[in-house]
Amino acid sequence: MNLKDTIRTIPDFPKPGIMYRDITTLLTNRRAFAEAVIQLAAPYMTQDIDNVAGIEARGFTFGAVVAYELGAGFVPIRKKGKLPFDTYEQDYELEYGTDTVEIHADAIRKGERVLLIDDLIATGGTAEAAIKLLRQTGAEVVGAAFVIDLPDLGGLSKITKMGIPVTALVAFEGH
Amino acid sequence: MNLKDTIRTIPDFPKPGIMYRDITTLLTNRRAFAEAVIQLAAPYMTQDIDNVAGIEARGFTFGAVVAYELGAGFVPIRKKGKLPFDTYEQDYELEYGTDTVEIHADAIRKGERVLLIDDLIATGGTAEAAIKLLRQTGAEVVGAAFVIDLPDLGGLSKITKMGIPVTALVAFEGH
Repeated sequence: MNLKDTIRTIPDFPKPGIMYRDITTLLTNRRAFAEAVIQLAAPYMTQDIDNVAGIEARGFTFGAVVAYELGAGFVPIRKKGKLPFDTYEQDYELEYGTDTVEIHADAIRKGERVLLIDDLIATGGTAEAAIKLLRQTGAEVVGAAFVIDLPDLGGLSKITKMGIPVTALVAFEGH
Repeated sequence: MNLKDTIRTIPDFPKPGIMYRDITTLLTNRRAFAEAVIQLAAPYMTQDIDNVAGIEARGFTFGAVVAYELGAGFVPIRKKGKLPFDTYEQDYELEYGTDTVEIHADAIRKGERVLLIDDLIATGGTAEAAIKLLRQTGAEVVGAAFVIDLPDLGGLSKITKMGIPVTALVAFEGH
């Protein structure tokens, strides 16, 4: 099973010049989906993960399944205004302007071991913001795992510099 | 394990008079999370489910895990404009105005057996729109399962009238 072959590329979405990596074709392939989950979870099987955090919205998909596979809880990191209880929030830069992600302030107890999951890492700006949020809760972020890496954008090295081991299952050159 | 006790109620969110049922406290409770997934999946274990569909964003969480547990693929149903390939779309009514959900037109092959999952059913408007989308793809919708039902809003009977077996794990009176 070559996971990369199950991901569809759509040129010029959402705007001209962007090669969009469409993970939905992986998700509907039951064998590829199971294989991706197992590859994401494998390095953490014996690492006593308390919670897996996933970033809205596509990160909920893999994040929740990896949490279940590891026997951990799941913590959603959401766009601003979606979480109903007290939150921490963190801004991050987009190509134009900024966006904000939030986490429930009581989602994680101090010292809990947390794994961050998202479907794709590009510049790493969103993942960096998510890790800052997790650290605000007192979590020990023990790793970050992504299905797709766009290595030309340097996201993995940004996260490594935060002292966090990172893995990605497939890489696509360009962006 | 009483699943209902793991769900937090937040009064007056997102607006006065609404009792918001907060599933994040269930998700971070690893035993409750696993129990909910198993209860959602159990009736479908021997039903040859090809794909599980989940509705953005909270439906991605349970939908993906139930898909994994059943050895099925996962199909995301998203808000308009998020899916990159050819889509079918379906409007549904909100309290004020309408909203639109989409599905990839090629996500499901004709005759495939599909289970719909969402975290909560209220009036059933979103679930009804999701089922119409699934039927447009040629799917056989063999069931719909929800974590939370708000029975005073009548959603389950709306879906039953579409000829689809429905289950919900817990019910909260009022809305």
